[in-house]
Amino acid sequence: MTVEFLPAPGTPVELIDTPAMIVDLDAAEANIRDMQQVVASGGSSMRPHTKTTKSPYWALKQIEAGAIGVCCAKVGEAEVLVEGGVNDILITSEIVSVSKINRLAALARHASIKVVVDNAENAREISEAAVSAQSEIGVLVDVNIRINRCGVEPGEPTTTLAKIVDKLPALHFAGLNGYEGHVFGFGDERIPETLEALEKLQHAVSEVNAAGLPIETVSAGGTSTHDITCKVPEVSEVQAGSYIFMDGQYVDQKLSFRPALTIMTQVISRPVPDRAILDVGLKSIANDYGPPRVMGLDGAEFTKLSEEHGTLSLTGSAQKLKHGDVVHLLPSHAGTTINIHDHYFCVRNGILEDVIEVAGRGKFR
Amino acid sequence: MTVEFLPAPGTPVELIDTPAMIVDLDAAEANIRDMQQVVASGGSSMRPHTKTTKSPYWALKQIEAGAIGVCCAKVGEAEVLVEGGVNDILITSEIVSVSKINRLAALARHASIKVVVDNAENAREISEAAVSAQSEIGVLVDVNIRINRCGVEPGEPTTTLAKIVDKLPALHFAGLNGYEGHVFGFGDERIPETLEALEKLQHAVSEVNAAGLPIETVSAGGTSTHDITCKVPEVSEVQAGSYIFMDGQYVDQKLSFRPALTIMTQVISRPVPDRAILDVGLKSIANDYGPPRVMGLDGAEFTKLSEEHGTLSLTGSAQKLKHGDVVHLLPSHAGTTINIHDHYFCVRNGILEDVIEVAGRGKFR
Repeated sequence: MTVEFLPAPGTPVELIDTPAMIVDLDAAEANIRDMQQVVASGGSSMRPHTKTTKSPYWALKQIEAGAIGVCCAKVGEAEVLVEGGVNDILITSEIVSVSKINRLAALARHASIKVVVDNAENAREISEAAVSAQSEIGVLVDVNIRINRCGVEPGEPTTTLAKIVDKLPALHFAGLNGYEGHVFGFGDERIPETLEALEKLQHAVSEVNAAGLPIETVSAGGTSTHDITCKVPEVSEVQAGSYIFMDGQYVDQKLSFRPALTIMTQVISRPVPDRAILDVGLKSIANDYGPPRVMGLDGAEFTKLSEEHGTLSLTGSAQKLKHGDVVHLLPSHAGTTINIHDHYFCVRNGILEDVIEVAGRGKFR
Repeated sequence: MTVEFLPAPGTPVELIDTPAMIVDLDAAEANIRDMQQVVASGGSSMRPHTKTTKSPYWALKQIEAGAIGVCCAKVGEAEVLVEGGVNDILITSEIVSVSKINRLAALARHASIKVVVDNAENAREISEAAVSAQSEIGVLVDVNIRINRCGVEPGEPTTTLAKIVDKLPALHFAGLNGYEGHVFGFGDERIPETLEALEKLQHAVSEVNAAGLPIETVSAGGTSTHDITCKVPEVSEVQAGSYIFMDGQYVDQKLSFRPALTIMTQVISRPVPDRAILDVGLKSIANDYGPPRVMGLDGAEFTKLSEEHGTLSLTGSAQKLKHGDVVHLLPSHAGTTINIHDHYFCVRNGILEDVIEVAGRGKFR
């Protein structure tokens, strides 16, 4: 495969070729520290979700700061994390297909692997693969606490599935997984909404306990709800992930975390005074949560994002923007933007400190 | 980097692990033949755009069918094409930054490289780099024919820039580039719209000719306009690209090409009769032109596409869908979907024939 010409550490940020995904290391590291502190003081452990970051580099930094392990979404992501030195992983999506289940069972020989299930037959298949691989897999029953995606209902369906898992060979019933991902924002209105969802999880916990099954782990939460979820006594760990970089969807909220990731782009055409074209398009920045935000350039607004071009409308002082100028964009959604980049360019005080591969990019199987 | 476990040729399509990007080879090959025939009989050459396909594999198939070369959007894509054996490439985006221009000049030692410009200073920088590299670069003046993105206006601005390019050392003034990308669809209403845009290009051609500059190449067109553009006498080559796979945005149009690319996915959760969850999300299928279309499953509709989950609402016979079942999706936009995959799984008559790398994925610099 054709090489990538990458800048070396020591390069000033403005000399990194565009489009480039730039991380402000001071901001990302502060976000990791702050989240760890908030969740620990609320009484829970941190198990950050790595579907956003897709890299063992960030996972190991989070573990170093106090996280007990991480989450990921796919077996392929878990393989990348184990190869990168992470040894405690919860996969928060149901894993289906013979091939993926066999990979899961093999991986569990090399690290502590937990997975969620919401189907008895799926649990049996995982058990058989783990017996063959002579490994043990931790299983959390996935409970629908109102996101209405995967998951069984709290109460009898959860308890029944927990009992089945508990009896299956080579599986270890590890607890319950919930995700109140339907709650978004940072305002006070999310407090009752979050607590209502978590009541369903608390109900599931008490029923499983009443059936005589010990529960080690109750995993829940995200960036929007971490400060509420971490204080719920039944919750043992919080899965927040987006907080490490934040993004445009959070920027108008009451923020305790700093935006740490931008896409640096360049003006490649300046055809008329009120229009500039950037070398960034849908293949280097995502817009599923809306257009990116132009940083530090009043009067510049996105009017179009095509596959390989970004069109800015310019008014006032933004019309001083010149051919070749560099422009920093805050993506509206970091998760889907990181997913189309191969490298993080990690910068401190304006100087490139490290280039990190997005090793889990494309690992959706 | 962690390996990808890939199925070998001979594998039945339903045993390929999901999510997977499946190409129907018969359909894609027929599309290549049909487009070549239409454009040639209209009097133009084919120079297909490879920003959609991002792979020398498809470019070489198109050249074998009669194309005179290909287009791409970025220097990184051109590097991948040259390494893959393609030797005639037009880069249809303005190339800005010292590093990219130096790579362009180096690449022009190994293949016929043409690039568009819309700025005199940019042309001078490219000339200087080509002089240093002892290479020659073909330059097309980029003309704005109403897409209102990059490009100079037809008439005096185009002629002035053409004269500047013509005098610069190590550059070869090769002609004009236009793109009527604002025209979309397959209905008759696009005919006057296309011809109106191309009149601007014709005007630019006659002015440059009047200034005594010979024009070898007039490059224009896309999938939506190929049958009109190829018949305009001044146009020498057509840049259509999407036609090779087609996608959901074209499916309701009057189609002369067949959809050839789907995302194969699997049901990972079946919590209630009217809901199924697929193992596909925004990290494996794009929705910038809307949600995917569910193929061959009446009563199934997308209600949500989150990062790693696809939620289907099911009515009627679609409620027979079972845990583990495979579902084929037609992406609304192939270009941005291919951009998040690493492999094409090429299938003929239900059997995997080849696995092809998306070698140009992520080459946006």
